[in-house]
Amino acid sequence: MTTRRRSAPRKRPVRRKPARSKRRSPARRVWSFGDGTAEGRADQKSLLGGKGANLAEMARIGMPVPAGFTISTQVSDEFRAARGRFDPDLRADVARALERVGKRMGARFGDAENPLLVSVRSGAPVSMPGMMDSILNLGLNDRCVGALIESAGERFAWDSYRRLIQMYADVVLGLPQARFEARLEAARDARGVALDTELTAEDLRDLVADYLGLVEKQTGRPFPQKPEEQLWGAIGAVFRSWNNPRAVKYRELNGIPESPGTAINVQAMVYGNMGDDSATGVCFTRDPATGARVFFGEWLKNAQGEDVVAGIRTPQPINEASRAEDTHGLATLEVEMPKAYRRLHRLSRRLEKHYREMQDIEFTIQRGQLWLLQTRTGKRSAAAAVQIAVDMVKERLIRRDEALCRIDARSLDQLLHPMLDDSVPRDAIARGLPASPGAAVGAVVFSAEAAEARALVGEKVVLVTAETSPDDIHGMHAAEGILTARGGMTSHAAVVARGMGKCCIAGCSALEIDAARGLMQVGSHLIRAGDVITLDGTTGEVMLGALPTVLPEFGESFVELMSWADRARKLAVRSNADTAFDAETARKFGAEGIGLCRTEHMFFEPNRILAVRQLILAPDAAERERALARLLPMQKSDFAQIFHVMDGLPVTVRLLDPPLHEFLPHSDDEMREVAEALGTDVASVRSRVEATRESNPMLGHRGCRIGITFPEIYRMQVRAVAEAACEVAEAGVTVKPEIMIPLVAHPRELELLRELADEELERVFADLRMRVRVRIGTMIEVPRAALTADAIAEFADFFSFGTNDLTQMTYGMSRDDTAGFLPAYVASGILADDPFVSIDEDGVGALVRVAVERGRGARPTLKLGLCGEHGGDPRSIAFCDRVGLDYVSCSPYRVPIARLAAAQAAIAASGPRRATGARR
Amino acid sequence: MTTRRRSAPRKRPVRRKPARSKRRSPARRVWSFGDGTAEGRADQKSLLGGKGANLAEMARIGMPVPAGFTISTQVSDEFRAARGRFDPDLRADVARALERVGKRMGARFGDAENPLLVSVRSGAPVSMPGMMDSILNLGLNDRCVGALIESAGERFAWDSYRRLIQMYADVVLGLPQARFEARLEAARDARGVALDTELTAEDLRDLVADYLGLVEKQTGRPFPQKPEEQLWGAIGAVFRSWNNPRAVKYRELNGIPESPGTAINVQAMVYGNMGDDSATGVCFTRDPATGARVFFGEWLKNAQGEDVVAGIRTPQPINEASRAEDTHGLATLEVEMPKAYRRLHRLSRRLEKHYREMQDIEFTIQRGQLWLLQTRTGKRSAAAAVQIAVDMVKERLIRRDEALCRIDARSLDQLLHPMLDDSVPRDAIARGLPASPGAAVGAVVFSAEAAEARALVGEKVVLVTAETSPDDIHGMHAAEGILTARGGMTSHAAVVARGMGKCCIAGCSALEIDAARGLMQVGSHLIRAGDVITLDGTTGEVMLGALPTVLPEFGESFVELMSWADRARKLAVRSNADTAFDAETARKFGAEGIGLCRTEHMFFEPNRILAVRQLILAPDAAERERALARLLPMQKSDFAQIFHVMDGLPVTVRLLDPPLHEFLPHSDDEMREVAEALGTDVASVRSRVEATRESNPMLGHRGCRIGITFPEIYRMQVRAVAEAACEVAEAGVTVKPEIMIPLVAHPRELELLRELADEELERVFADLRMRVRVRIGTMIEVPRAALTADAIAEFADFFSFGTNDLTQMTYGMSRDDTAGFLPAYVASGILADDPFVSIDEDGVGALVRVAVERGRGARPTLKLGLCGEHGGDPRSIAFCDRVGLDYVSCSPYRVPIARLAAAQAAIAASGPRRATGARR
Repeated sequence: MTTRRRSAPRKRPVRRKPARSKRRSPARRVWSFGDGTAEGRADQKSLLGGKGANLAEMARIGMPVPAGFTISTQVSDEFRAARGRFDPDLRADVARALERVGKRMGARFGDAENPLLVSVRSGAPVSMPGMMDSILNLGLNDRCVGALIESAGERFAWDSYRRLIQMYADVVLGLPQARFEARLEAARDARGVALDTELTAEDLRDLVADYLGLVEKQTGRPFPQKPEEQLWGAIGAVFRSWNNPRAVKYRELNGIPESPGTAINVQAMVYGNMGDDSATGVCFTRDPATGARVFFGEWLKNAQGEDVVAGIRTPQPINEASRAEDTHGLATLEVEMPKAYRRLHRLSRRLEKHYREMQDIEFTIQRGQLWLLQTRTGKRSAAAAVQIAVDMVKERLIRRDEALCRIDARSLDQLLHPMLDDSVPRDAIARGLPASPGAAVGAVVFSAEAAEARALVGEKVVLVTAETSPDDIHGMHAAEGILTARGGMTSHAAVVARGMGKCCIAGCSALEIDAARGLMQVGSHLIRAGDVITLDGTTGEVMLGALPTVLPEFGESFVELMSWADRARKLAVRSNADTAFDAETARKFGAEGIGLCRTEHMFFEPNRILAVRQLILAPDAAERERALARLLPMQKSDFAQIFHVMDGLPVTVRLLDPPLHEFLPHSDDEMREVAEALGTDVASVRSRVEATRESNPMLGHRGCRIGITFPEIYRMQVRAVAEAACEVAEAGVTVKPEIMIPLVAHPRELELLRELADEELERVFADLRMRVRVRIGTMIEVPRAALTADAIAEFADFFSFGTNDLTQMTYGMSRDDTAGFLPAYVASGILADDPFVSIDEDGVGALVRVAVERGRGARPTLKLGLCGEHGGDPRSIAFCDRVGLDYVSCSPYRVPIARLAAAQAAIAASGPRRATGARR
Repeated sequence: MTTRRRSAPRKRPVRRKPARSKRRSPARRVWSFGDGTAEGRADQKSLLGGKGANLAEMARIGMPVPAGFTISTQVSDEFRAARGRFDPDLRADVARALERVGKRMGARFGDAENPLLVSVRSGAPVSMPGMMDSILNLGLNDRCVGALIESAGERFAWDSYRRLIQMYADVVLGLPQARFEARLEAARDARGVALDTELTAEDLRDLVADYLGLVEKQTGRPFPQKPEEQLWGAIGAVFRSWNNPRAVKYRELNGIPESPGTAINVQAMVYGNMGDDSATGVCFTRDPATGARVFFGEWLKNAQGEDVVAGIRTPQPINEASRAEDTHGLATLEVEMPKAYRRLHRLSRRLEKHYREMQDIEFTIQRGQLWLLQTRTGKRSAAAAVQIAVDMVKERLIRRDEALCRIDARSLDQLLHPMLDDSVPRDAIARGLPASPGAAVGAVVFSAEAAEARALVGEKVVLVTAETSPDDIHGMHAAEGILTARGGMTSHAAVVARGMGKCCIAGCSALEIDAARGLMQVGSHLIRAGDVITLDGTTGEVMLGALPTVLPEFGESFVELMSWADRARKLAVRSNADTAFDAETARKFGAEGIGLCRTEHMFFEPNRILAVRQLILAPDAAERERALARLLPMQKSDFAQIFHVMDGLPVTVRLLDPPLHEFLPHSDDEMREVAEALGTDVASVRSRVEATRESNPMLGHRGCRIGITFPEIYRMQVRAVAEAACEVAEAGVTVKPEIMIPLVAHPRELELLRELADEELERVFADLRMRVRVRIGTMIEVPRAALTADAIAEFADFFSFGTNDLTQMTYGMSRDDTAGFLPAYVASGILADDPFVSIDEDGVGALVRVAVERGRGARPTLKLGLCGEHGGDPRSIAFCDRVGLDYVSCSPYRVPIARLAAAQAAIAASGPRRATGARR
């Protein structure tokens, strides 16, 4: 709150004054611009609307903007208060402003010889694209059209008049569009053409007559021939459109207040379709795809803005640098209109410098004269965003802080995964949740086993399944990408895939999978195992066949930006990694430690699972010890490898966590295998497996409850950590092992298990005659742990917030079971933000705050981290920074995102002064 | 804390002074008593130990206590500090005290002619039964034994000497008992007898010689013949026993501090086995079974205290009032020793008056002289407790507050369920958890269906099953009692059975049930369906055959006590009741409303479940509406009946809560039935059923999530409530319906559903042209709801804490899945108190506090209740009183418990002054 207030004063007085003085002495309500000057400026969005403020700013700094004026948002409120009437003062102000526009453009509104035509457009403080109405070509009538015929040709003039009548009938008079469209269609049919542009001047003239008749017939009054009447009709209609149902709904959904209302921009028309010396186009001050500092854009000769958007004609490159493969042969603006091009280029550079941002500019050339219609911050790819930000720092346009804050941390994801070539058109047959970005091309397989088998012989496969489970990990590893019919953004498939940096589309409900028969139906398509499909994990689209992919790479700029981020941030960034391979990836991406090494994933390896099953199903402690003895060297070697990779950095090993049932055999073959190994029969194995089944495994016999009931398992794991650490330390590596005890709900659990761990550590150190420092801590993932954090901190060197489970328990919502109600929840706005993606600050966040306060209160040296999925989410990272955690830990591919997000959080926390550079 | 401090001052100074002055001027360390006076008193337990303080008190008020003295607890600390040495001052004090004992008893310690024999016993401030050692008959030696032979006979003397040597060898010298036992056994064998009492004086004399030799051989020194050496040896040993491993462990488990240590009581021996003018016995000042104000007790002629306990001889009644069926023919003390009896009776009355409590007194008559050895508060049945408390108020011995506080609220349970006749011996074949008290006798059935079928033909059955589910409710209703192999004190079976007031034993792991074959193995017993068994739900015991039961009834005293409770308490007490029948029971037990009416239980009725299944499996909204239309009149009639019964009192109806899966068909037959009703095939029903299966149903699609996704279901339920309320109100009944929305985690859920409910209510009121007031509120059962209670309170007229689910989520522990780890958790002291039985104040309680504060902060008129299982638990009720809830709601049979517990909580809260009557 404080920071927002500190940043506001520059704008507030302007925003507030008109509202306060509304009923007393009216402040300026009509703001003129054009001809290199303006009464308003960019920071008056609240009063002039976004568009009006921008036009004013452009004019003010001397850009060739068609002259016009803005009726302020204050009038919108007055208009509503006065029930749709305008007071004489306003009419006088508008008339004066209109006259000034005419002078600036060398024309006069309503003049039969040299008529000024204007547009009336809405422009609210917050952009509401497509929600409100616009009317063009106002000022045309039966009298003026002649002058226009003379100056711009017959076809152009009649077409402009036709458009005015149709728009006016719709927006101002509220007549149904269908009748007008029917007449237009009849005209096309009569001429035997498909497009309006193919109609002749005559056709259009007849149509105008026809339209005028239609208006008179429908309204009982002729179409207004007085330009002033047209103008005020249009202004009233646009103000009214502020409260049309669509706009009201849009504001409701987006939390936009009703007041201030919209501003209205009345601006002289300019035309890019007045012949071959006219043109229209769009340009960027830098390449929006690569960020390269080249002037970039497209144009069309003798065309209007809509034509560029409509895609009927292929736009031409404005210069050689903008030329793409499919535009060879098309002439550039630079060649065809060199003077206009040079001016455009010069002005673009000024605009970028002025706004200190890459600009996306709309321009029109009317009979050789360049007009700028709009400029705004240009959208760009993630790669371009990085390049531009770094370049602008070097060009001294912006500071490093600003560069860091300009990049959407989430978008870095695009830089880290192979992706589809965007320039290739695609035909999606289904769309699911974009669970893990990147692209995957491969043959469909319907089981983890098939994925592994086919991958072994070198085939690229896409694993398609209803949903995945820990049993499928090997198959997911083997596949190029994963496509599931069920589950959300944080389903098993999604989480694991993101962890692997592997493309995944989850919850694609259009799939009807019949795995047994090896096929699936997707809409009208029947896809068999072996058919090739392509996934776009960034958009959630599924395509038939193989689409080409591109491999992004880290540029110098990326590396440089990251180094700035590392200097700016306070939060350390670690990674979740279960294997040495993951750890290497994480380290490459800049992780400063492993925040979560899940030992259970190691247990699922094919050559280990049997020993794990023997362990769980052992009839007695002796058999259990035998199984543990087999597992110990495997775990030890896992840890040793990870410690090697993470030389000098901390590694947090979480002791066994999941319900034991997850490890147990399900198929008859597996049961037979286990029965043989244990020297017992299948029936008794089956009954043991049945006995471990739980109603709510999430809330069952798992986490430290396993450590309490089977202390020998935790003891083995602690021994493996300690022996590995000693071994690696002797080889000269700096090891910083941390042992994390999961699912603690009661201080005594941690007390007992810490005792056990300390005992085992001492035993190992005594055996090996050396010692390493091992920190012992716990996950805070059960609400009770957060609430009793002071008592728990007594036995913990560190806390790591396991916000996945903490969210599930705090919400009372299993993320595996949300399919039935999540759509309704999103639709009714209960879960606007998925709490499994962005931390729920009111609920889960409240518990985190409590735990931080109580934990640090009891033990000031307590180290605090977060290792849930939220560790890679920028909003959640900002929260972690605010509550004062020491680090976040996320999947390897999210480490750069977290580094940047942490930097942005630190910059935001240091106050707006530093972030915006504004000084008072 | 404050209250404890306020009550302490009377005792504290006494407890503290010795500790403080330990090293400077020693306070009195040896406290004499006997002969109608004493240096100590009852409130010096911390200094004199419980036993010592009690003996002093008895002596002080003139009771005939064998003279003796107490060595204070302070000496225990000194003894440890001095590493087992005694200072000369202490030795002198003891010698003086011993001399005084001798004078009082007319004997002298170590005197050959008239030896004083003493016992040395420990006596800590907090009773630690059996943890420390005692030694009797000290003072006997080769020399004195002659005098004893002369005065008490040869057999008595040698036996006493033998006992001394054996005890001394064990306790003081630390010799293994086995050798002494072996000699004793050899002596019995030689004589050809089975009992020590059958040995002759000669045998015992030989044994003494033998023992003396054994001691000398084992220790290398003769058995100490000096009485002083014996005494100090005994004192040292008893002090040392304070730190024996058993005692240390016991203190650890019971949270008893190490300091102050134990006191030691040295007391003259008296004997009830010195001939036919000697006796020993136990008496109560009132009948401990009924509470009747009659003098009650048992005695044995020429016997020692152990003999009464050992049960070798049948004790005789002390008077006619104490005579039981199996003691006819045995002479009473009143007849045999009328003088001693009259004195005993007189003294008992004085003791009761002095302590203002029913007393349990041990006495010995030595050669016609009555000695009192101990008095303490007498244990009694629940019925007796009520009777005594009420009588004592009438006798003006105690105040009503005190009467209320003297009854263990939990024990009222015994008064409310039929129970086994305790006087009939039983032979338990297995023991489970005493899940719901009372008794049940019936034929074993292994399914709910069988239970219902057999009950229909009038058979009494006991339902035996692995565990129960909501499907089994009808069978549980039909059965006399329920016995399950799995599940804990709060398993489905236990909770439902308690709700029904039905006997239940849960988690009886000895059962090996083969339901398919209709039999079970219990240890060596094979029990078939139809065999009769008896359950004791109060102890958890299972017996073969039919044992007789007794039906308790509410006495006048009970009713009177309850009326006092109702006046004393602040908390209202409501009941959880799903049917009119339950509601009637609840009202009879004094419920002031229904706090939780679960609508889902109504759904399980056989004639409704099909409609419910159609509803859930409906392919579209139309089919759903048809099913709802069938359910509406049924629900409406349920509610109308309950409103009738609860005329004038509030009824909280909870809208549908459980996962829909629970209602779905499982067997083929059921699926066929549903398929027919829906006009579809079994396969599609099966696939729908499969689709609703959840990984963690507790955290799945349930509670208000059903209301959000299927608003028509909640709308039907609201309509049923409103229509029923209007109908009943028109009939002149006062209805106070409350609608409760379950499982709210986010304020917006409640906002939406409240809107829906309000709409539907208005629609009904408009239709019926009348209105009743309907409050709408929510359950707080998800941690997030508690954390965001301020926002939720905006839409709630009331909160009801659903502490069952709140505990599960706060602990992250499903109560259905604790079987695997609960034993280990109890053993390691993590869950000393089952959080599902007594509210977990640190965790769940913290959330309740937060919700109360935030909820009332946002809406001061918010009504607050609790409707989890905790609503019937006295400790939890005290918590509810402290945090300021308005009411608790519990199962009907617990209503009286809750009423009393609420009164006790209010009395405790009003301060110790009022509770104890102490004034400063």
